[in-house]
Amino acid sequence: MLPSDKKWFNEATLECGSAFSLTITEKLFEEQSPFQKVEVFATEKFGNLMTIDGLAMLTTRDNFLYHEMMSHPVLYTHPAPKRVLIIGGGDCGTLHEVLRHPEVEQVTQIDIDEVVTKASRLFFPELCESNDDPRATLRFEDGLKWVKEAAPGSYDVIIVDSTDPIGPAEGLFGEAFYRDCAAALGENGILVQQSESPLYHLELLCEMNRFMGRAGLGHRQTLHFPQPVYPSGWWSCTMASRSPIGAPRDEAAAARPFDTLYYTPGTHHGGLALPPFVSRALAAVYEE
Amino acid sequence: MLPSDKKWFNEATLECGSAFSLTITEKLFEEQSPFQKVEVFATEKFGNLMTIDGLAMLTTRDNFLYHEMMSHPVLYTHPAPKRVLIIGGGDCGTLHEVLRHPEVEQVTQIDIDEVVTKASRLFFPELCESNDDPRATLRFEDGLKWVKEAAPGSYDVIIVDSTDPIGPAEGLFGEAFYRDCAAALGENGILVQQSESPLYHLELLCEMNRFMGRAGLGHRQTLHFPQPVYPSGWWSCTMASRSPIGAPRDEAAAARPFDTLYYTPGTHHGGLALPPFVSRALAAVYEE
Repeated sequence: MLPSDKKWFNEATLECGSAFSLTITEKLFEEQSPFQKVEVFATEKFGNLMTIDGLAMLTTRDNFLYHEMMSHPVLYTHPAPKRVLIIGGGDCGTLHEVLRHPEVEQVTQIDIDEVVTKASRLFFPELCESNDDPRATLRFEDGLKWVKEAAPGSYDVIIVDSTDPIGPAEGLFGEAFYRDCAAALGENGILVQQSESPLYHLELLCEMNRFMGRAGLGHRQTLHFPQPVYPSGWWSCTMASRSPIGAPRDEAAAARPFDTLYYTPGTHHGGLALPPFVSRALAAVYEE
Repeated sequence: MLPSDKKWFNEATLECGSAFSLTITEKLFEEQSPFQKVEVFATEKFGNLMTIDGLAMLTTRDNFLYHEMMSHPVLYTHPAPKRVLIIGGGDCGTLHEVLRHPEVEQVTQIDIDEVVTKASRLFFPELCESNDDPRATLRFEDGLKWVKEAAPGSYDVIIVDSTDPIGPAEGLFGEAFYRDCAAALGENGILVQQSESPLYHLELLCEMNRFMGRAGLGHRQTLHFPQPVYPSGWWSCTMASRSPIGAPRDEAAAARPFDTLYYTPGTHHGGLALPPFVSRALAAVYEE
């Protein structure tokens, strides 16, 4: 039993045999959207916590890890990222990081659920500070459909900042979606997607890589990084492209005109340095 | 509430507002030693779990992360590690990794509590495979006293593989102990110690660095790495020396004559690439 004099938010990952919990003080927000149940809690030590269908999405305290690693590595890898599409990302934390790059000229964010952004504006206002940037367009639509209908070659970078591959986000981990992304990406265009826990979800990571490859995204790089409120506390994202993915643009990254808490050229390369148990599994996918 | 149809091991880190839990099936071992309570549980998905005074020490599934990162980085940093001392480490996982280095000529392990090693032999036999290596000496004594009485310059590497800085291990995080370590280290000798979570225990990490510096260990490197069963899932170790600590010996590390699951020259450098919120805090300690 967890200490009963505290109120706890609990997230059990039963298929992996573990759970993570945070001490909370009160529920600040609850709304059942047409797609999912969005809640926000005040925690004792992690600031605010947003959950979707009972799963932790982000906290004030540690969301910088995920948001920085979903945005800066891909933007400092693409040679000249001007046109960015974010699928999901309704909390606007990724959008906020993307807009810190002066070379980005336009960002379109397509989240299916306006309630996520509504809750974030109220309880994570620091992530929504850039929502009115003239370069940003926020739309609440189906990301699958948006990408399918996108003009060929219309984006330099597509960031898939989605929930787990169950429920509304399931199609975002499928071959047909990756094929549409491949078509929507311009020359040297790069897709990046959160790719779950290296320890818990290695099979899923391999399956994503397999689907990406079949969809024509023959060049891929996976990065790993810590993320305490996600299962296992260890997370990853995967970049994929039709063209060879170059080395990080270290000089530009070192001269970035904004502060970061986690991202540096060093943590970028560190994220790319995969443990052998992961790199061996991914190499096997390439050899299929 | 966590699902009540499961049995759970729970570890609450109340001062940080979180908890981690594992589904268990049965208790395999329990013994109150003169120092602490040692228990082993069978888990559903993590193999066996050893706890000390109710805190997770290691599991079959993920101990490779900690044990590889406590041993290989320091051994591939010291120019010629022949004489190694391990303080703590009674589960013998670090010892096992150290003994995979052919250039190591002798390893002395000093854990205060024989019950930890007894439990490990029974329930983590794969970690104890090398205990009979003729290069290894296992003694069950007070590590503080051992280091205090060690001949000056008698070790190339000292690995402090201890529990948290409460209870029996408290003195292992203090200036007097570091001073004794500094004296016991030979030329270019390096101490490495587990230094808790970068996110949860940044103040402790800074305080360790401060004490190390005051004890004459003026050169330090901290590495970070994932460790799911420890609080926050994100952990660190810190190397400290009287002499400048060189770059990793990448060629030797790349040609290592044994398999690893996490360690490579890449993850070694990745571990050294600290996030700005950590490197800034540690830089401030140097400037005091």
